[in-house]
Amino acid sequence: MEKLNLLKNNLRELFKNKKVIVAYSGGIDSLLLSILLNNITEILCIFIKTPYISKWALNNAIINAKKYNLNLKIVEVDKIIENVPERCYLCKKMFFEILNKEKEYYSYDIIVDGTNYDDLFDDRPGLKAKKEFNIISPLSDLKIRKKDIIEIAKYLNINHPPKETCLLTRFEFNRKISIEDLRKIECLEDFLRNYTNGAIRVRDFGDLAIIEVEKDFDKFIENKDNIVKKFKEFGYKKVCINLEEYMSY
Amino acid sequence: MEKLNLLKNNLRELFKNKKVIVAYSGGIDSLLLSILLNNITEILCIFIKTPYISKWALNNAIINAKKYNLNLKIVEVDKIIENVPERCYLCKKMFFEILNKEKEYYSYDIIVDGTNYDDLFDDRPGLKAKKEFNIISPLSDLKIRKKDIIEIAKYLNINHPPKETCLLTRFEFNRKISIEDLRKIECLEDFLRNYTNGAIRVRDFGDLAIIEVEKDFDKFIENKDNIVKKFKEFGYKKVCINLEEYMSY
Repeated sequence: MEKLNLLKNNLRELFKNKKVIVAYSGGIDSLLLSILLNNITEILCIFIKTPYISKWALNNAIINAKKYNLNLKIVEVDKIIENVPERCYLCKKMFFEILNKEKEYYSYDIIVDGTNYDDLFDDRPGLKAKKEFNIISPLSDLKIRKKDIIEIAKYLNINHPPKETCLLTRFEFNRKISIEDLRKIECLEDFLRNYTNGAIRVRDFGDLAIIEVEKDFDKFIENKDNIVKKFKEFGYKKVCINLEEYMSY
Repeated sequence: MEKLNLLKNNLRELFKNKKVIVAYSGGIDSLLLSILLNNITEILCIFIKTPYISKWALNNAIINAKKYNLNLKIVEVDKIIENVPERCYLCKKMFFEILNKEKEYYSYDIIVDGTNYDDLFDDRPGLKAKKEFNIISPLSDLKIRKKDIIEIAKYLNINHPPKETCLLTRFEFNRKISIEDLRKIECLEDFLRNYTNGAIRVRDFGDLAIIEVEKDFDKFIENKDNIVKKFKEFGYKKVCINLEEYMSY
């Protein structure tokens, strides 16, 4: 596969003999990057576990690190970032501060993340933080797009979990979010995974919950009575489903 | 039917030889009351058409007035009541002021409405206005409950349309509501009636629309792509359906 060989060669040129920290979320971008770099040089994958990252995401990250023999460190953070419109920027900034400390502590040379070329064209407020902290994004620098990543992952037989985003995205901006709010969403999304292995989003609008599913829509409809019952136990008054399927990629 | 005979006798006793204005919404309560009173005395049914009452509701009210030979007057009001938590009270107050003027103008003796006994136990801010304007509610005074009304209507073969509420209930309190907002909801609910003859609610949360249906849920699911398309033409970004059926009664 030419695309893959080119990418490998480019990564080798850039990172050979450098000790690399990977900002590792367990998503397909940072996973693929980690797997490729792991064959080139010494890497340390760091997963930062905040209260607004689901245990499910952490678990997937651990499983894949084991499977692909990645050197993984988990850093736990108790703080819930303020739920303001610039929350992504604030969070990334905190993440990169942590990664920089780890870099100093373990005497690594460089920090990379999984940002891909398509991400540059999205409205991603987190990217601003990246620049401030000298984080390298080899995939976007090498103009690797999401579809390339999916293609290469498929070629390498890397099973990637459904795309996960942070749990703060389940809430509207400027609502004060407690640990209990986050645990509620986490618990309900875990429950809904009984009906699908696709991506799930439970959006919280106070009394109202909106479920978004990537696939298996009909299964959710078939089981709607059970689902409503479960959500009502958690205090919701109305439980709705988005009639459009959630687009994970 | 004993219940019906008792009700008829009581109404005769109360309203014989009195000229009665009925606050007529076209809903089953005021419809049944109008039909019964129409056999007892001279009545004038008044339907007040505001921008937040759907044309569909008006149309049903006209059809039933014709069918049951009711003397109907439609009073048109341009004003949209302020969308505050006490909107029901403010609206009822306006309604009763209009009805009182009509009463004076046509020299009627009394104004009645269709409030039933169950309504007294709901949180109905409109009831407060009723007291201030000396409006009589024979059904609630005679302890006639919703289930009695449904039973009697069935016995008399009165087909009643699905329960309709005012269109302001489709919006959260304190949002400023324009004529265009109301027409949008009205248009979309009319569109959804292609799939059901049950009650329909389109709740507007800005970019997000939530559909609630009394019955034919599966038909809405089957036609979800069409429905989403239609709603997106009206500017909504997300179109959801409540997983529980809307309880009309």
